[in-house]
Amino acid sequence: MSSSAATVALNARDLLARRAAETPGVISFAGGLPDPALFPKRQLTRAFVSALQSNAAAALQYGWPEGSLELRQWIAGELCSRGAKVSAERIIITSGAQQAIQIAVASISDHARIAVEAESYPGALEIFRAAQAQLVPLTDQAGLYYAMPSVSNPRGSRMPDPERRALLARASVSKGFVIEDDAYDGTCFSGARHRPLLAEAPERVFHVGTFSKTLCPGLRIGWLVPPPRFAKRALRNKQASDLQANGLAQALVLEYLRSGHFPKLQKRARAHYRRKLERLLEAVRRELPQLRFDEPIGGFSLWLESEQEAEDTELLEAAMQQGASFDLGRQFRLGRARNLCIRLCFSAVPADDIEVGVSRIARALRQVHPPARPSR
Amino acid sequence: MSSSAATVALNARDLLARRAAETPGVISFAGGLPDPALFPKRQLTRAFVSALQSNAAAALQYGWPEGSLELRQWIAGELCSRGAKVSAERIIITSGAQQAIQIAVASISDHARIAVEAESYPGALEIFRAAQAQLVPLTDQAGLYYAMPSVSNPRGSRMPDPERRALLARASVSKGFVIEDDAYDGTCFSGARHRPLLAEAPERVFHVGTFSKTLCPGLRIGWLVPPPRFAKRALRNKQASDLQANGLAQALVLEYLRSGHFPKLQKRARAHYRRKLERLLEAVRRELPQLRFDEPIGGFSLWLESEQEAEDTELLEAAMQQGASFDLGRQFRLGRARNLCIRLCFSAVPADDIEVGVSRIARALRQVHPPARPSR
Repeated sequence: MSSSAATVALNARDLLARRAAETPGVISFAGGLPDPALFPKRQLTRAFVSALQSNAAAALQYGWPEGSLELRQWIAGELCSRGAKVSAERIIITSGAQQAIQIAVASISDHARIAVEAESYPGALEIFRAAQAQLVPLTDQAGLYYAMPSVSNPRGSRMPDPERRALLARASVSKGFVIEDDAYDGTCFSGARHRPLLAEAPERVFHVGTFSKTLCPGLRIGWLVPPPRFAKRALRNKQASDLQANGLAQALVLEYLRSGHFPKLQKRARAHYRRKLERLLEAVRRELPQLRFDEPIGGFSLWLESEQEAEDTELLEAAMQQGASFDLGRQFRLGRARNLCIRLCFSAVPADDIEVGVSRIARALRQVHPPARPSR
Repeated sequence: MSSSAATVALNARDLLARRAAETPGVISFAGGLPDPALFPKRQLTRAFVSALQSNAAAALQYGWPEGSLELRQWIAGELCSRGAKVSAERIIITSGAQQAIQIAVASISDHARIAVEAESYPGALEIFRAAQAQLVPLTDQAGLYYAMPSVSNPRGSRMPDPERRALLARASVSKGFVIEDDAYDGTCFSGARHRPLLAEAPERVFHVGTFSKTLCPGLRIGWLVPPPRFAKRALRNKQASDLQANGLAQALVLEYLRSGHFPKLQKRARAHYRRKLERLLEAVRRELPQLRFDEPIGGFSLWLESEQEAEDTELLEAAMQQGASFDLGRQFRLGRARNLCIRLCFSAVPADDIEVGVSRIARALRQVHPPARPSR
């Protein structure tokens, strides 16, 4: 993130994150950022020139709240190829996935109880809390369920088929709805493209996607596929929120997609991120053997847990003194986590910094929790 | 607006507007759009290249929710030069003025009663209605007041000083807040730059601005200056809404402002829009003498009223058959207007179409309301 000293910190966590981002020399595993080395600057410049030449008005003038028809057609094509029968008319272009989640929640009248995975994307939890929802485990009955079935954040895991079926069955019994946050689907290392929940229950699923993880987050282009009977309400909420998604960014993404470079970029990105993950796994196995993890199938991060009870903020303070930072596990959880858990994002860390960064965190952990002396 | 057949119409009004926009040959006075002829395409292309060369990460990566510090500094400088003491830290870059209004409303707990001008920007009314507020006249007591004191929409008028003082006094007595929607300030034909309400009551005013009317709406770059004690809440609402404003558009606007071309563009735009208004006024005086209006001091539109009771939708249907469209007056009003009122936006109509468009509307009006035969 670009640095910005003159600002209001939202809370202590935010303050720590900003301090870490603004301290030179800190190796940051925080933030879920794509690697800027992958941003296709030259092709985006070509796309910009082409968008302004071919239809400057579409890029720079006001547009309709649902967004560019051509872009929606492309997204519909992608979803169809993954098994969901979706026409372009059903898609609303949003200002990123965050806004798509926000609009979904605002469109559903019964969100008093929202069921979420054991660990969830903090931006979604923030929306749910602002809506004064009671947050319960995903296995409970609720009016609204939020999950990342394809590739989860922070774990980078795929929801097993029996759990997917059980989730949809539960939603059906409770006459509830599901927000399927598909933000990380395109990051699966194997290149696998998962059948979305949307394909099984289009009348019950609000499907959320984005170009933030696969192209550039600064463009703020995401999408929402609401169930057909929510189409008007969702569109009205989109319009009330900010009239329309950025026209320039929509035109730019569309021209970029037309250039045919996107599949190549995705392939390159998958290999790139997988290499970084492998270096991280190796370093973590060596330096942090006391922390448990499951190997991610995609995504940008590794979720680490300890058996020990510990203050993650204390560890972060110590890590920052050593010159490394990470995301506090508690942000991803419903209640206060008792055991220590942290998220390490490998995506934007320069590959050669990964080992050094992990050693710094390991040093910090030894400071905060000196290993028990072996008993004789 | 770019055409888009495959979509969901929000309501009958929306359907009419879309039909008008999509019917070739229709001269459209609808929409409050800036003239695309003024979009500085070449300079924006230079700004794009420069933004990507100098700091691609700032343009394409995630950023902080409050937005670019440099852009906020520029906006602070503008506000200071107009008499409001505002530091960059107090400004939040938003996805257009619409989102700034939305965030202001979400940040104020008491918005059960919102006081508005006799005619108001429909996008704001939509937000207030969605928040289930009771809408009352601006002269009533309320928890929240919404006004466009510099240049109003749809009338293009400036609020007289006694009314400004009375508004602030009322807000102070009711311990309420004021949303000052300054979207059109930069369009004042005289080039006058008004002292904002923010300058008088920074602890009570949520100041809203945008580049949509003076640069390009497709960039979706606006701003909000909340009262200091709402700083955190507003920033949290911004983050929950869509994380951050479009980074690319922020970088582009910043580079464009740095190029020094903005004052020249504004000067050219003022003269350009004034010429269009003059042609419109002349045509309206000649062709629609039965409609009353006040001459605007700025803005993009002329507000026309008749003494007659009439169905504005009926007139719009007839006008569209004649090949012209406009904005229904009822969208701007609290209750159902009894007398006929319409908004004619001159900003984006090609200058040579203005007379023809007005004749078409006049023909439609004669169809819908044949003039009474003079009594002997």
